[in-house]
Amino acid sequence: MQPLKLALGGLLLAASSTAAHADALRDQANAIFKPIPEQVAGLDAAQVELGRQLFFEPRLSASHVISCNTCHNIGTGGADNVPASSGHAWQKGARNSPTVFNAVFNIAQFWDGRAKDLEEQAKGPVQNPVEMHNTPNNVEATLKSMPEYVAAFGKAFPGDKQAVSFDNMARALQAFESTLITPDSRFDQYLKGDDKALDAKEKKGLQAFMSAGCISCHNGVNLGGQAYFPFGLVKKPDASILPSGDKGRFAVTKTQNDEYVFRAAPLRNVALTAPYFHSGQVWDLEEAVTIMGTAQLGKQLDAGEVGDIVAFLKTVTGKQPQVQYPLLPPSTATTPRPVD
Amino acid sequence: MQPLKLALGGLLLAASSTAAHADALRDQANAIFKPIPEQVAGLDAAQVELGRQLFFEPRLSASHVISCNTCHNIGTGGADNVPASSGHAWQKGARNSPTVFNAVFNIAQFWDGRAKDLEEQAKGPVQNPVEMHNTPNNVEATLKSMPEYVAAFGKAFPGDKQAVSFDNMARALQAFESTLITPDSRFDQYLKGDDKALDAKEKKGLQAFMSAGCISCHNGVNLGGQAYFPFGLVKKPDASILPSGDKGRFAVTKTQNDEYVFRAAPLRNVALTAPYFHSGQVWDLEEAVTIMGTAQLGKQLDAGEVGDIVAFLKTVTGKQPQVQYPLLPPSTATTPRPVD
Repeated sequence: MQPLKLALGGLLLAASSTAAHADALRDQANAIFKPIPEQVAGLDAAQVELGRQLFFEPRLSASHVISCNTCHNIGTGGADNVPASSGHAWQKGARNSPTVFNAVFNIAQFWDGRAKDLEEQAKGPVQNPVEMHNTPNNVEATLKSMPEYVAAFGKAFPGDKQAVSFDNMARALQAFESTLITPDSRFDQYLKGDDKALDAKEKKGLQAFMSAGCISCHNGVNLGGQAYFPFGLVKKPDASILPSGDKGRFAVTKTQNDEYVFRAAPLRNVALTAPYFHSGQVWDLEEAVTIMGTAQLGKQLDAGEVGDIVAFLKTVTGKQPQVQYPLLPPSTATTPRPVD
Repeated sequence: MQPLKLALGGLLLAASSTAAHADALRDQANAIFKPIPEQVAGLDAAQVELGRQLFFEPRLSASHVISCNTCHNIGTGGADNVPASSGHAWQKGARNSPTVFNAVFNIAQFWDGRAKDLEEQAKGPVQNPVEMHNTPNNVEATLKSMPEYVAAFGKAFPGDKQAVSFDNMARALQAFESTLITPDSRFDQYLKGDDKALDAKEKKGLQAFMSAGCISCHNGVNLGGQAYFPFGLVKKPDASILPSGDKGRFAVTKTQNDEYVFRAAPLRNVALTAPYFHSGQVWDLEEAVTIMGTAQLGKQLDAGEVGDIVAFLKTVTGKQPQVQYPLLPPSTATTPRPVD
């Protein structure tokens, strides 16, 4: 029996070493990443409900055609899957629309972080002439013209004398958007202890994602979104991907160090949000990973590594938000008319 | 006691006469109109479910930006509440987008009835160069590029060798749109016997709607939508409302009698679907009713009659459809790219 016992011992040792190795990988991952929570605490139900209406409200745009959901589509990963969104009069946005999903966990909003939170962000596209092309005054006049909105704002902001305001519109949107989170991805199941949630290739990808250095920028709950880095840290990518006219965060800080600096893209649901980068010029996740390798890490990742990393990245797609399409109040005689 | 008995008898008589009168009004209304049913029978659940995705699918348009819901918004009465929709490259549609709600009950689709049903209708905007600007081939390539759609079409059309087809897209859309109905309006409650569902003014409006002759065109389950009539039967309205360049059904039949002929607008949820008429140039329901009086009936309805009729028309707003926003499959490497 001795040889068999030895052999069994070897098997047990191997199994236990694999388990230890698996735990080590998970421990390492848990030191770097965090699962998406089941919900964001402290949200006001009336604000969330109002925000749901406002998110789908085309009358926040001058044309009465464009809503938040137009560019941050709930059905397609919270983004619009085009290089640059079509705004008022079919004008194109300067950068790819980032996903609204899990955006509440980002350190700041927009590719250059120019809005400190979702409330501040919400006011941007509404006023941007190439996006919704509206004004705070006109938005307030629009919302005040509909008794149902007046009542809903009153309920959501009971302390305010002027409950219907552009600011409160933004607060309600922030409340609703804070519910647009995607917990329970296979990766999060893995982080929480379910070893079978990832297969061998995906774990290899996770390992490669960590050891190659991707985690320098893509870490935390959103695998990114927490800090700013120059795009082309090691080697500038092609001008079609990093157009010279867009200097990123430099426009916000006017600091030369911030030229071509962008907030690290959060990678949650990245498999749903092509095309990639602020320029929206790369459709293929493999290609995007390869470009990141050369541009940010100075590494030519081989096809095997890229394939493993992409397999891993596909496991961070979480449970997508289930949203009931809201009923919106009818316009009245005093509702400002749409503008072309 | 004799005088009291007489007085009581008089009261009873009056009450019974009012009841008889109320029943007469309802009987008359029931001879002309029909309530919206709770549901349309015979729909295939898998087709409805696929149709729900397709209805919100922006990739049915060449730009990947415009979906059916863009112009037939579920949240705003099934229409878009602008004079003419903005299509591909911000081009304007030739006519006001009709509501999709209860459209299944119309005799035919479009203002000129050029599509015999919702299936045929669905193929129109997808291919119209000023609307979604797509082609059947490109739509099929798009849908075939996503395994989730291939599976959903297979489930919805199990008998078909080529389940993913432009025709089946239209069939699925028809199935879903057949669920977009609005039963249980106060008017329908009244038709079914609830005398208190309408107040005195609304009943007066119903009476006026019938006696003034509106019901010649606006009758049946949709209060319209069942037959074709010349706009300006008695007196042509202003050219801004009836532009001379749009000869309506004449373009379909090439029959001179059909010049400026349109399908009578179905009036269900009319309070939610401003602006009015095929030209979408009238925002106010009172004004629209007044114009109909002069143009179609040769009558200058007075303000009281108009007010009563509008009060009645507001009672035909039914229970709006509750729709879960669908999750759409991600594009793949073979999905045709958006076109500007």
